[in-house]
Amino acid sequence: MRVAILAFDGFNEFDCFLPLGLLNRLADLGWKAELASPSSHVTSMNGVTVQAQRALEFANEADAVIFGGGLYARAIAENSALLDRLQLDPLRQLIGGQGSGTLLLARLGLLGDTPACTDSATKPWVVEAGVRVIEAPFHCRGPVATAGGGMAAQYLAAWMMLRGAGRQAAARALAQTAPVGETAQYVDRVLAVVSPRDAADRNRPAGS
Amino acid sequence: MRVAILAFDGFNEFDCFLPLGLLNRLADLGWKAELASPSSHVTSMNGVTVQAQRALEFANEADAVIFGGGLYARAIAENSALLDRLQLDPLRQLIGGQGSGTLLLARLGLLGDTPACTDSATKPWVVEAGVRVIEAPFHCRGPVATAGGGMAAQYLAAWMMLRGAGRQAAARALAQTAPVGETAQYVDRVLAVVSPRDAADRNRPAGS
Repeated sequence: MRVAILAFDGFNEFDCFLPLGLLNRLADLGWKAELASPSSHVTSMNGVTVQAQRALEFANEADAVIFGGGLYARAIAENSALLDRLQLDPLRQLIGGQGSGTLLLARLGLLGDTPACTDSATKPWVVEAGVRVIEAPFHCRGPVATAGGGMAAQYLAAWMMLRGAGRQAAARALAQTAPVGETAQYVDRVLAVVSPRDAADRNRPAGS
Repeated sequence: MRVAILAFDGFNEFDCFLPLGLLNRLADLGWKAELASPSSHVTSMNGVTVQAQRALEFANEADAVIFGGGLYARAIAENSALLDRLQLDPLRQLIGGQGSGTLLLARLGLLGDTPACTDSATKPWVVEAGVRVIEAPFHCRGPVATAGGGMAAQYLAAWMMLRGAGRQAAARALAQTAPVGETAQYVDRVLAVVSPRDAADRNRPAGS
């Protein structure tokens, strides 16, 4: 399972490094998550310059792709030369958007009529792109998921592990990164948010 | 408030980037958290090479210091040439250790007789260094705190904000990174763990 975590200049560290740290806990099952960027180096929203592990085009061949958010998502969403380098396919890839990364999923036409999660600052732009935004930390339909709020990046990663490696593997990875003494509550809470039935309940209007 | 987040080769991304992302939410109050490293570049435990923002010695002049953990904490703890570059002072600095970073605090004599938190893999080495390890995600005494388990890095950052900027500022920063729709629960949960009274209750033997 090769995972491309897309990091652009101004990227939010939570969006990229929470999934990177979690997904690579499944290295023994053949998972490898790497930062993919349009240039050799990118600088995070808080000024940390990182070396890209992969070119942007790695996303096209990866088994799963995560769009992290960042300071310049709106500019990237309007940069068709950049987005044209991406040819993703939900029939063979799991695809996730985190925070303002959801805007890029919208622009690439990957959301269809699926409601989506994003952060409050990005919401107007996602709505303008024709997508219904819900006030929830996580939503998935089939192979596409979105999450909103920095710490929700863990949900996106957990969903990907659940889909790609099963509940036991996802629970193990989460347990390895849980606060000491809080493992069971932490694992249960995260899996409850991203499990198919629970996610459906959460997004269903009250009373339906 | 200048904060040095110490990142060595093999550093755990959670330990360094969770505090970095959280603490810099207080930029408007004059906070700046930066990665400080013994070399110009360090590579994380999952293979991401980052450019150090500061030299290791920045820790000596910073107002607060966080020791992130990583793959090589034991080797670093035995590298006296490296540790000799650090002259920290709890009388004028807040100091935190996360995961195997706690071992470095122990070696530097910063823990005294305070019990400490770390991850289960590092526990034997912290015990060998003469420190009592408790099965809790977070513990503080005065200006020194420790945390164990990757996601507990948020507790260390929250404690630092609480001590250095007050409850309102800490709550605001946490709210800005909370999963959408879970803000109140998230902020309350984190602050409960790191608030002085709650932390004391948590570490008090049952019935006392």
